[in-house]
Amino acid sequence: MSNTFGTLFRITTFGESHGAGIGVIIDGCPAGIGVDAAQIQAALDRRRPGQSDLTTPRKESDTVQIQSGLFEGFTTGTPISLFIPNADQRSDDYSHIAKAYRPSHADYTYDVKYGRRDHRGGGRSSARETAARVAAGAVAAQLLAHFGVEIAAYVSTVGEVEVPVEYQDLDFALIDANPVRCPHPETAVRMEARIREAQAAHDTVGGIITGVARHVPAGLGEPVFDKLPAVLGHALLSINAVKGFEFGSGFAGTRLPGSVHNDEFYTDEAGAVRTRTNHSGGSQGGISNGQDINFRVAFKPVATLLQPQQTINDQGEAITLVGRGRHDACVLPRAVPIVEAMTQLVLADLLLRARANRL
Amino acid sequence: MSNTFGTLFRITTFGESHGAGIGVIIDGCPAGIGVDAAQIQAALDRRRPGQSDLTTPRKESDTVQIQSGLFEGFTTGTPISLFIPNADQRSDDYSHIAKAYRPSHADYTYDVKYGRRDHRGGGRSSARETAARVAAGAVAAQLLAHFGVEIAAYVSTVGEVEVPVEYQDLDFALIDANPVRCPHPETAVRMEARIREAQAAHDTVGGIITGVARHVPAGLGEPVFDKLPAVLGHALLSINAVKGFEFGSGFAGTRLPGSVHNDEFYTDEAGAVRTRTNHSGGSQGGISNGQDINFRVAFKPVATLLQPQQTINDQGEAITLVGRGRHDACVLPRAVPIVEAMTQLVLADLLLRARANRL
Amino acid sequence: MSNTFGTLFRITTFGESHGAGIGVIIDGCPAGIGVDAAQIQAALDRRRPGQSDLTTPRKESDTVQIQSGLFEGFTTGTPISLFIPNADQRSDDYSHIAKAYRPSHADYTYDVKYGRRDHRGGGRSSARETAARVAAGAVAAQLLAHFGVEIAAYVSTVGEVEVPVEYQDLDFALIDANPVRCPHPETAVRMEARIREAQAAHDTVGGIITGVARHVPAGLGEPVFDKLPAVLGHALLSINAVKGFEFGSGFAGTRLPGSVHNDEFYTDEAGAVRTRTNHSGGSQGGISNGQDINFRVAFKPVATLLQPQQTINDQGEAITLVGRGRHDACVLPRAVPIVEAMTQLVLADLLLRARANRL
Amino acid sequence: MSNTFGTLFRITTFGESHGAGIGVIIDGCPAGIGVDAAQIQAALDRRRPGQSDLTTPRKESDTVQIQSGLFEGFTTGTPISLFIPNADQRSDDYSHIAKAYRPSHADYTYDVKYGRRDHRGGGRSSARETAARVAAGAVAAQLLAHFGVEIAAYVSTVGEVEVPVEYQDLDFALIDANPVRCPHPETAVRMEARIREAQAAHDTVGGIITGVARHVPAGLGEPVFDKLPAVLGHALLSINAVKGFEFGSGFAGTRLPGSVHNDEFYTDEAGAVRTRTNHSGGSQGGISNGQDINFRVAFKPVATLLQPQQTINDQGEAITLVGRGRHDACVLPRAVPIVEAMTQLVLADLLLRARANRL
Repeated sequence: MSNTFGTLFRITTFGESHGAGIGVIIDGCPAGIGVDAAQIQAALDRRRPGQSDLTTPRKESDTVQIQSGLFEGFTTGTPISLFIPNADQRSDDYSHIAKAYRPSHADYTYDVKYGRRDHRGGGRSSARETAARVAAGAVAAQLLAHFGVEIAAYVSTVGEVEVPVEYQDLDFALIDANPVRCPHPETAVRMEARIREAQAAHDTVGGIITGVARHVPAGLGEPVFDKLPAVLGHALLSINAVKGFEFGSGFAGTRLPGSVHNDEFYTDEAGAVRTRTNHSGGSQGGISNGQDINFRVAFKPVATLLQPQQTINDQGEAITLVGRGRHDACVLPRAVPIVEAMTQLVLADLLLRARANRL
Repeated sequence: MSNTFGTLFRITTFGESHGAGIGVIIDGCPAGIGVDAAQIQAALDRRRPGQSDLTTPRKESDTVQIQSGLFEGFTTGTPISLFIPNADQRSDDYSHIAKAYRPSHADYTYDVKYGRRDHRGGGRSSARETAARVAAGAVAAQLLAHFGVEIAAYVSTVGEVEVPVEYQDLDFALIDANPVRCPHPETAVRMEARIREAQAAHDTVGGIITGVARHVPAGLGEPVFDKLPAVLGHALLSINAVKGFEFGSGFAGTRLPGSVHNDEFYTDEAGAVRTRTNHSGGSQGGISNGQDINFRVAFKPVATLLQPQQTINDQGEAITLVGRGRHDACVLPRAVPIVEAMTQLVLADLLLRARANRL
Repeated sequence: MSNTFGTLFRITTFGESHGAGIGVIIDGCPAGIGVDAAQIQAALDRRRPGQSDLTTPRKESDTVQIQSGLFEGFTTGTPISLFIPNADQRSDDYSHIAKAYRPSHADYTYDVKYGRRDHRGGGRSSARETAARVAAGAVAAQLLAHFGVEIAAYVSTVGEVEVPVEYQDLDFALIDANPVRCPHPETAVRMEARIREAQAAHDTVGGIITGVARHVPAGLGEPVFDKLPAVLGHALLSINAVKGFEFGSGFAGTRLPGSVHNDEFYTDEAGAVRTRTNHSGGSQGGISNGQDINFRVAFKPVATLLQPQQTINDQGEAITLVGRGRHDACVLPRAVPIVEAMTQLVLADLLLRARANRL
Repeated sequence: MSNTFGTLFRITTFGESHGAGIGVIIDGCPAGIGVDAAQIQAALDRRRPGQSDLTTPRKESDTVQIQSGLFEGFTTGTPISLFIPNADQRSDDYSHIAKAYRPSHADYTYDVKYGRRDHRGGGRSSARETAARVAAGAVAAQLLAHFGVEIAAYVSTVGEVEVPVEYQDLDFALIDANPVRCPHPETAVRMEARIREAQAAHDTVGGIITGVARHVPAGLGEPVFDKLPAVLGHALLSINAVKGFEFGSGFAGTRLPGSVHNDEFYTDEAGAVRTRTNHSGGSQGGISNGQDINFRVAFKPVATLLQPQQTINDQGEAITLVGRGRHDACVLPRAVPIVEAMTQLVLADLLLRARANRL
């Protein structure tokens, strides 16, 4: 198991979907950061189930408790413990899957790896674990705010419905203006319809989240193995249901000639070094160059379906599984704060690490 | 700096393009593995410049020296040191770029981060560093061979030229049958033409490499942060010029409904658990499930161009840069062994880590 | 901050003496270990204040809550979270030291390092943090029990009062037969008197704890930097008030000639490799050799005194400090389970790490 | 295996006594440090065999090669590789011990752990590995010099011959004035006689090295597990032949009452916070307090004897072993630079780590 992430700003998460709760320990947050518990709670509220009728009707209040690490509202350099009790546990919902290997879930692989598993609601493999990441990300965000770094993410694709413009042409203030978390209002309407269509068909749908980090100082990222996109990719690929990560020009950039892809440097009026284009996605040689860091994350359709599926049980016998319970038809709106949190955690860590490079 | 990769099977690379040489220390390789130096050399020969007229005419013999860790042909559990002296150093080739910030290179970011840099040939940011990874990967491959794991990669796209079939329909024995390392002969011819076209235009071209790992035992991958695709993505995104990583259904999978995307389990005649499709790419919940692990890696076009470009120098003054020297118009054929090496290193490490999960 | 210890069996502790509580996350405990909560509680009860009139009269119930990682009484390979709420917090006891730098405490160094600190009861620097270690050690002990490893510690010196015989001549069943935790009854009586003498003088007294690990399999310890005594020393020197660590012949062994110090090997009747003496303390070349691991840990006298002391405040002004509150005159009896816990944690980790050395 | 030490200033050593050579990679040294190769060589010359007739007559030139990481005499933030070729390898000297388990050596434990070993000269378990540490320490020293930190060590005990005064009363300029590396001239003469006595008896003798670090800034050391003395103890206990470590008042301090042991704070004329005594050894709560860091390290007598010993071979059969070859009767004079190097490495690392504690 590897439940710790980060080198200097490090988090360790714990907890299962149906135990006492889930939580996270943040070790390495510098002393002297004012931490506002309301900001942590606000981030959790954007991730929690039941926030709109587009998401699972499961109600989880997800109320965070700060157990250590703060004194008079400021960090002290000691570990910050955040705990989120599990409120709405209906274990009986899961009895039908205790011995089934649900298609495209982690049931089979956990059994092979560990020889036993907590089958209630997916146990540790449940996406509920990501609430702990969101809470920790909200602390990282308050550290990053000291340096002016701003991070945002939004839903850019649901199924085949795509935002038709680049992130530069969007008003991020509109991200939370609709339940889909897409800042392009017309597309948001179509996305919402696409999700309701999936709900109605007892099916699910995937999509893509775009992330942007602005005002990131140049110099973050540790060559050669902890290049900024490598660590960021690691972080985002560790989120449940993620199948791909690309930054800057990404996969599409492979079709451009070098003479078009290269980002010319120039000096702006204020004397700052800038590039005319940003196919590099804000990272060159694995180190931030001061331009926007931008990337896209692919989420597969949710694997839990409210329709019959063929599979096997833990004896290898063929069975028909009929999903039940309260599940999302599309995870993307609730995944936006998770993508933001992992980005916050990565940048906070790289920011601290960068201090050791020079005297 | 972070020049170490891996948790139990760990490598540390060192060296610049124009110093004494480059090398790697492998720490954590179990004792008792027979290591054939010829296999390491063979892997390096697939990566080295000048192997065909499609690649840079730079001649680097890249001869590996084993400095420690073996006794009578077997590993002893002590660190394995592999050193590759730099043979063909023409430092004068680089005088024109000593103070220039080449577009889409690491010159500017290294200067910002470290305050100084070895500008000769890119120094540490040179792709030459990957030779050390290839050498280490060849040792990991000999460990993986004990468990029957087989890893292969090939060029599946150059610019807009794509292999029209899936990996299952290709004969991997053909990968090295042409200088492009594409096992689809007709496409290989078109790719070769595409690269020569870029060469003629003094331009460059990118593409995609597909990787496949077969016979990987179920159970590899460490939830929650070191999921198999997360660690693999980290490894591949740390390669120079990589802009994206996707596994299994990847970005395209975001358009499938869950009812199509889910991989049904069944028990085969031999009693083994298998899935009818493999949109999961061999990983569920971040843990290998015994199916093929498959993924795609996007490489941008090479940034060094043999044509004039606008940029600035380290004083922020606008300059025109004309590339010269001996460079690849397309890095993909030589990147195939690098992708394989990083995959070998990741799986060797996860294989050792998995042993600690159960008594 | 570095609140994580261990490589494969890893603990992360958190919490301050006057917050919500203290706790520990154990990551990397293999699946399938039966964990008995009563054993964890029993270990905590040996460490808790107020267990006899030799220790502080502070009453802390120290009741452990298992928050995650177990299912039906067995570990699942997921993180185990143990939380101990703080019950008896009288913050007002500490108002007099809010701005004082107590002699030989961490007040000054925390202020210099972090710029602020939670002064209540020492905050994170309080020995209360070690309760989390004891809880984690009790889980490690249940893993070690699968391999037959037995660990015990006892008080071998209080001030100048010493146990006159070697550990081999003691009956460890007597360790808990007296409040001092010394298995030599006559010496225990003298030690108890020595502690009461310190209490009466409003002074404190230090001493030495001897630790022994039996039935440790040969092969544990990772050369070259994580030799068994090096990791064990690290663990024990991280306990509050510890000033020294020696194993086997230790400092006294420096006076023996090599011809006496060397441990001759022989093969016993059962065919096992053994040594006639054990000056090596069970470790040769940093790797366990199957003999008893034995060591000694020096604890300084408690720094909190119930008598006036000269010192300064955080403005650098000279002040007279009069200790008050409820404190131990001798920490050793309560430190015995802490020494055992750190030894358990180290051996559990080295045991898991040793599995990666050979195929 | 664990051949890496340090968190931010990290070294990885490799090589055996009878391979191509030994070496070290330093990762994480900040850019911009001027590194003088002559200082590295000077440190190695203090460790090398054959430097006086008190040490082994083995001649090893131990000439360091800098392979990477420097550009125009300054560090660039990239890994620094230092390689020391093995010059004088007489493998035939070791044929008699190929199958023997030498008493108090690592032969048996390496065989148990790894199933095979390079028996020539101890292979990786040879103290020759420490030359790589000394080379790395000399680089760390050049980083520490920027902050004014000074580190010195000397031989304070050989067998029962002890320096009769504290370190404060010694002139460290005299350390290298005699071959024993004891700055107390009269005692040095007696130590030299004691070593010659052991040589004449074909026996060996141990002793104690005292180390002192001056002008260490307050604030170094990472609670709770990487307290300064814990990390320093780890480093020093990882040196071959070390059996104990104590700092400040150490084991003797356990006999002092708290009222004597406590170090009173005061403000000196310059306004600096100081303590009147330094039983704390420069560390309180695991964090440096600006006073001298001082400690003592116990070395057992060398295990290789030029006299017959009883032992067994790898078949478990009793044999008589007669040592031969060229060995030290006392390792302490040559261990002085090793103790200094490990201290330099620890302080360089803690210094970089401390920067992440506050904004």
